[in-house]
Amino acid sequence: MTSPFQEKNSNSTTVPTHGRFPVLDRVTYPQDLRNFSVDQLSQLADELRAETIDAVSSTGGHLGASLGVVELTVALHAVFDTPESKVIWDVGHQAYPHKILTGRRERIRTLRQPGGLSGFTKRSESEYDPFGAAHSSTSISAGLGMAVAHHLRAEEDPSYKERNVIAVIGDGSISAGMAYEAMNNAAEAGPGAERLIVVLNDNEMSIAPPVGAMSGYLSRLISSRKFIGLRELAGKFVKKLPASVERTARKADEYARGMITGGTWFEELGFYYIGPVDGHDLPQLVTILRNLRDAGNGPILLHVITEKGHGYTPAEKAGDKYHAVARFNVVTGEQSKGPSGPPSYTSVFSRELVRQAATDKNIVAITAAMPSGTGLDAFARAYPERFFDVGIAEQHAVTFAAGLATEGLRPFCAIYSSFLQRAYDQVMHDVVLQNLPVRFAIDRAGLVGADGATHAGSFDIAYLGCLPGMTIMAPSDEVELLHMTATATAFDEGPIALRYPRGGGLGLELPAAGQVLEIGKGRIIREMGSQSGPEKGGIAILSLGPRLAEALKAADILAAHGLAPTVADARFAKPFDTGLVENLARNHAVLITLEEGSEGGFGSLVMHHLARTGLLDSVRFRPMTLPDIFIDHNTQAAQYEQAGLTAPYIVNTALSALGIEGASSVNMSNYSTGTKP
Amino acid sequence: MTSPFQEKNSNSTTVPTHGRFPVLDRVTYPQDLRNFSVDQLSQLADELRAETIDAVSSTGGHLGASLGVVELTVALHAVFDTPESKVIWDVGHQAYPHKILTGRRERIRTLRQPGGLSGFTKRSESEYDPFGAAHSSTSISAGLGMAVAHHLRAEEDPSYKERNVIAVIGDGSISAGMAYEAMNNAAEAGPGAERLIVVLNDNEMSIAPPVGAMSGYLSRLISSRKFIGLRELAGKFVKKLPASVERTARKADEYARGMITGGTWFEELGFYYIGPVDGHDLPQLVTILRNLRDAGNGPILLHVITEKGHGYTPAEKAGDKYHAVARFNVVTGEQSKGPSGPPSYTSVFSRELVRQAATDKNIVAITAAMPSGTGLDAFARAYPERFFDVGIAEQHAVTFAAGLATEGLRPFCAIYSSFLQRAYDQVMHDVVLQNLPVRFAIDRAGLVGADGATHAGSFDIAYLGCLPGMTIMAPSDEVELLHMTATATAFDEGPIALRYPRGGGLGLELPAAGQVLEIGKGRIIREMGSQSGPEKGGIAILSLGPRLAEALKAADILAAHGLAPTVADARFAKPFDTGLVENLARNHAVLITLEEGSEGGFGSLVMHHLARTGLLDSVRFRPMTLPDIFIDHNTQAAQYEQAGLTAPYIVNTALSALGIEGASSVNMSNYSTGTKP
Repeated sequence: MTSPFQEKNSNSTTVPTHGRFPVLDRVTYPQDLRNFSVDQLSQLADELRAETIDAVSSTGGHLGASLGVVELTVALHAVFDTPESKVIWDVGHQAYPHKILTGRRERIRTLRQPGGLSGFTKRSESEYDPFGAAHSSTSISAGLGMAVAHHLRAEEDPSYKERNVIAVIGDGSISAGMAYEAMNNAAEAGPGAERLIVVLNDNEMSIAPPVGAMSGYLSRLISSRKFIGLRELAGKFVKKLPASVERTARKADEYARGMITGGTWFEELGFYYIGPVDGHDLPQLVTILRNLRDAGNGPILLHVITEKGHGYTPAEKAGDKYHAVARFNVVTGEQSKGPSGPPSYTSVFSRELVRQAATDKNIVAITAAMPSGTGLDAFARAYPERFFDVGIAEQHAVTFAAGLATEGLRPFCAIYSSFLQRAYDQVMHDVVLQNLPVRFAIDRAGLVGADGATHAGSFDIAYLGCLPGMTIMAPSDEVELLHMTATATAFDEGPIALRYPRGGGLGLELPAAGQVLEIGKGRIIREMGSQSGPEKGGIAILSLGPRLAEALKAADILAAHGLAPTVADARFAKPFDTGLVENLARNHAVLITLEEGSEGGFGSLVMHHLARTGLLDSVRFRPMTLPDIFIDHNTQAAQYEQAGLTAPYIVNTALSALGIEGASSVNMSNYSTGTKP
Repeated sequence: MTSPFQEKNSNSTTVPTHGRFPVLDRVTYPQDLRNFSVDQLSQLADELRAETIDAVSSTGGHLGASLGVVELTVALHAVFDTPESKVIWDVGHQAYPHKILTGRRERIRTLRQPGGLSGFTKRSESEYDPFGAAHSSTSISAGLGMAVAHHLRAEEDPSYKERNVIAVIGDGSISAGMAYEAMNNAAEAGPGAERLIVVLNDNEMSIAPPVGAMSGYLSRLISSRKFIGLRELAGKFVKKLPASVERTARKADEYARGMITGGTWFEELGFYYIGPVDGHDLPQLVTILRNLRDAGNGPILLHVITEKGHGYTPAEKAGDKYHAVARFNVVTGEQSKGPSGPPSYTSVFSRELVRQAATDKNIVAITAAMPSGTGLDAFARAYPERFFDVGIAEQHAVTFAAGLATEGLRPFCAIYSSFLQRAYDQVMHDVVLQNLPVRFAIDRAGLVGADGATHAGSFDIAYLGCLPGMTIMAPSDEVELLHMTATATAFDEGPIALRYPRGGGLGLELPAAGQVLEIGKGRIIREMGSQSGPEKGGIAILSLGPRLAEALKAADILAAHGLAPTVADARFAKPFDTGLVENLARNHAVLITLEEGSEGGFGSLVMHHLARTGLLDSVRFRPMTLPDIFIDHNTQAAQYEQAGLTAPYIVNTALSALGIEGASSVNMSNYSTGTKP
């Protein structure tokens, strides 16, 4: 109950809303609210909601989900002795109220800001975050692990017996296979899962409207039952069952009844189902959770109905319930628009795919619960019968696409780089090994800004590049993305991926249509001028993806010092342009590769080829990649600066490869304020 | 219906059982049996079972599962017009009878043999294999993709409307999350899934006894109902429903009834459930499948009860129902034992883990349906309360282990290299990003022999090596594995993996206990002798894993020619021994790395370090990895020969790096019969 971090009301002075929320002002850690009356808790919930809105209005972030769980957050911390008992927020983006109540109110206005709080739960941030999350559907597995560990530890320390584990998971997240795997195991874990409570936070809305049979089932479950009341609830907890024998008998009885009278889907999976209950009725939530805490006959599934954006009219009225917002005006709800930059890569991909699909009826598109994020919403509007949102189910998405491809369709499977990790085996075993022409549109490749390390698309070149027969493209700008989208459409010979970043392009004028590129061919952007020195001299920079802009900046700096490099755009990470690579290696003293990905990717593939041909021995090869660390949330620009992938670092790498001492010989003061190597 | 491959009874002369099976002899392709009477089909099934037993007795393979589906195989091909209609065998290892009936009887005795038939379904092998499989639980996703594609194609070609898609999936496979994701989507796919039939092949036994709530649910479902008979079935198909309006109404009605009277779990997910039916009653199977074929109101789940090993007494009596067998005597069932070689890597890992766990109560072990294959069966017997078989659920396994680790336990998560691909995102997001000390015991790393490309553990060094903070070990022999198991136990600082191959070690004497190794330190095995030539001359071979034996053979050959190399064992792929690597690079003209993995792995990590330090410029670096191709099933030795990772190739790489012409200068005739580079 005691926290080493605890400094009572230490935040009072620096919280701008201090004084406006008298009950909230009394709470720094959950223990501060445990003696509150139900009326005080209700007041606390109201103030917590207002504080959340105020904070997110200045930072932007995932508002809607957080507003939906304000009462649940208060009730959980009031009833369970966190952090000894564990509350795991699935996905973690609904945990802003939780952060405010667990020692982080003072920093809540740093949410998603550089150096500030993470937009998700994070173990290193607080002992009240027992499990970091940002990808969905992990909470039940993690929670079962904790519950089982408590059971094992209780042999030596009986206090572990009293610890509950509560996994709060949304109705969208429960459509993912791993949530099912976890439930399938929890129900059989016996005494290890007795104190596991799964709270199904059912707002009938994850990021997009829900899909899948489970969603339909939950709707029917709600519509066929009225909210459970305290009276009915009492019958469910006549007594706390002490003996495991009795418990087993009771379970057997429940199973038998379930078979005859029709248990819920969850009961058939072996959960004790309670619900549905009103997730905004704080007094009742507290009563129910107290009962569940003392029951100890889990695993229990508590089905809570909440409203995304609840209690804030602009959010309630919005189509996406303010799922993720920019900074906004609290009174009007109006979100501040950022400076209107060039079209995003996402929108360029979307535009070209929709255009291609007008004349090619074989194009179909698949998303895993990200129609808007991937830009496929436009495709869905234009060709609803050829659009498939499979819900949070990346594994199924990929193999479903493979099935479509076997019948001659041209599936585009649009999944963020970090989420495609969920379907790695399906990519390898179902698509690549069978050489099926599935098109992977990999958005959010490279560093992604405010979403941080969990969402960074750092590994796809490595994890796809090692697969035989894979084709991987990365556009250096939005016009190139247009071409690569057209190229992917035209390519029926096997799997092909195009990876492109979060955010806007360079603002280039877009041609009316993309052109089909030759597979495996790069292009020279700047040929080294005549000012190069020794016979085999000079620098070549081979860039994959949007780092090309930094490569050109670096080239300008180097040129100003008489070291104009050759700059090339690889276009393809695999198969890459071996002729181009060989020529660059033969005709330059230094060859730098540049990519927005980890070690083991493009640079590695190039190196292997150079080693095989012997050319590696006669060129100073310098592959530049993301560093071998996880990079926290920040602006994308600052992240790439931290990663050492900006122009000054490229210059420095070139100079140091040439044996010219340090960056000091080149004036880079205009290029960054960061520390240079 | 016509097959380009079809040569009527072309197999008659070369099939050793020709003449023994008169009905089977008349069948080369499924069209040959479609006019058979039910009696003839029954006779065919009996003969097909006998042929399967005879064939596998000479090849070894997955016998039990195949024997369980003989009647189902005959019935499916009799009722559905394969290959236009698609039959997808989940996992694919039960498809031997299917192969015999689909043009491959003549080659069935080449099963799993070099150059022979694959032990799984494979698209390149037959048009009757619409989807390759070997990893479980992909069939419903792939099948839904095909069904939806047929629906879309039917706009232009109405014949597609008549095509059914049948996914046959076992009760073990259905515990995997992706099967649930697929069902969740199939039930909502509307007309696209009308002709999708999922056959749940329930033998209450996948590889190991089944686990999970779903398994318990299926048992209760069976025990609460008698087999459905033809009379009850008739009521289910009063008429073929023509109009989609009527169908929708009927579905709504079913849903409503389900809510009131208790539908099955599958009905609640939106499937039309039929069953359970006796999977060995061929006449009834044919009748039911005909009804389902004509119903067109899917998705349908047909729950078929089969017996693994059915119809072959030795298999029925065996504990594992002859899941996977060596060659055997058909009469007695006795399996031929291979030459008793040294203990397997698996057993050495198992032994040491059990020993460690005797004194360390924090050690827990997790497998995903592979207790025997991973050697954890011994752990399960010794410490049942600390052992967790989560079923075919790798994603859950990893995050469950992460949850256990948060509470201070020491989880060993033992998963084959190729199956860990299923949990890649969980490894990255739940374990590595949070730096949790989960121990990954990665068996079947590298090439695996008869199971072929689907089971090859080729990519784990690449897909794990790119993750910041990961520790990866690979033992060069079984004693090293003992040490690395001890090292993993002692390492609480973060995630750690030990990857080791299928098969036996070198037969070394094992010490009583493993020793804890220093993290990130390799060892010199042979120091280059004084015979080296120029000032900075000579060859260094840095091996990771069991290729060390080949490195030493290569060293002997080179030494015999006055070119004795330094040989080192890296032990760690990450973090590797930078001091050792730098010294090798500084003091040798040539540095070869050697690993049983793809490009992008250990060699790439070493290269990046050498490039950063500038040492890459002054050493001829030659990283040897698996080639960028999928390698078909064969003996492990032949596979590594094909991969170019044996001693002669190492010698050749060294010589060619030194500029000595070709392999011809060294006599390698004793080392291989293969073509040398």
